[in-house]
Amino acid sequence: MLAASAVLLLLAADPSPEKDIRAVLTAQQDAWNKGDLDGFMAGYWESDDLRFASGDTITTGYKATKERYQKRYKADGKEMGQLTFSEVTVEVVTADYAVVRGRWALKFEKTADEPRGLYTLTMKKLKDGWKITTDHTSAAEKK
Amino acid sequence: MLAASAVLLLLAADPSPEKDIRAVLTAQQDAWNKGDLDGFMAGYWESDDLRFASGDTITTGYKATKERYQKRYKADGKEMGQLTFSEVTVEVVTADYAVVRGRWALKFEKTADEPRGLYTLTMKKLKDGWKITTDHTSAAEKK
Repeated sequence: MLAASAVLLLLAADPSPEKDIRAVLTAQQDAWNKGDLDGFMAGYWESDDLRFASGDTITTGYKATKERYQKRYKADGKEMGQLTFSEVTVEVVTADYAVVRGRWALKFEKTADEPRGLYTLTMKKLKDGWKITTDHTSAAEKK
Repeated sequence: MLAASAVLLLLAADPSPEKDIRAVLTAQQDAWNKGDLDGFMAGYWESDDLRFASGDTITTGYKATKERYQKRYKADGKEMGQLTFSEVTVEVVTADYAVVRGRWALKFEKTADEPRGLYTLTMKKLKDGWKITTDHTSAAEKK
């Protein structure tokens, strides 16, 4: 019984939060690149308290954040493009809180535009897994 | 003795990390507005591992971060301007780790320019108090 309890404890402690967190980002990237905005949004906390910061604009709530993405990348004539995350670092602060940093880059076919920038995420381990609870994104200044 | 220990424990637990953290930001703002870059930099972790992210550029290390500020705000013909932090929120994650978010705004006299944007900081409680260990800053897109 002791051995079984020890195993359960190990499982409960989630020895590799970093692996689980990276899997969320990879799933987001894969969903985006299939044009699947719902799949991409699954990485975010579905809450009115989700915070998405970009430039000097704060968007509050899951619904408003999804609408922002929809307007920018799904509206008439827009394309989602190909998304790449790179230089991703995961700082596991507690068993259920992490800070994730990395670079994002987009490639658009129609405009040949290639915006890029940085992000800092806070992620929490919730009932349904690790979710992005706040996102701060910045873009390269236009030349 | 028990009572004295309890008091010591209370003191050690730092019941108001948020107050201490806000004091660091206020000291930074005050130093900046006196043109005191060293005083401003005192809020940052003096380490080669300090991370300063802005736009799509990552600056690594205290020295390089200070040089970046020097070039942008202290070089010939440049001015530091007046800095205001606002809408500051402090998320205390553990007794020695916090995530701080807010708005920054600068006012320059010479150019009448008023850049502004957002920041997300991670702060750690070190031997010499709370310090910014990573800073992600974004600016409003130029119109």
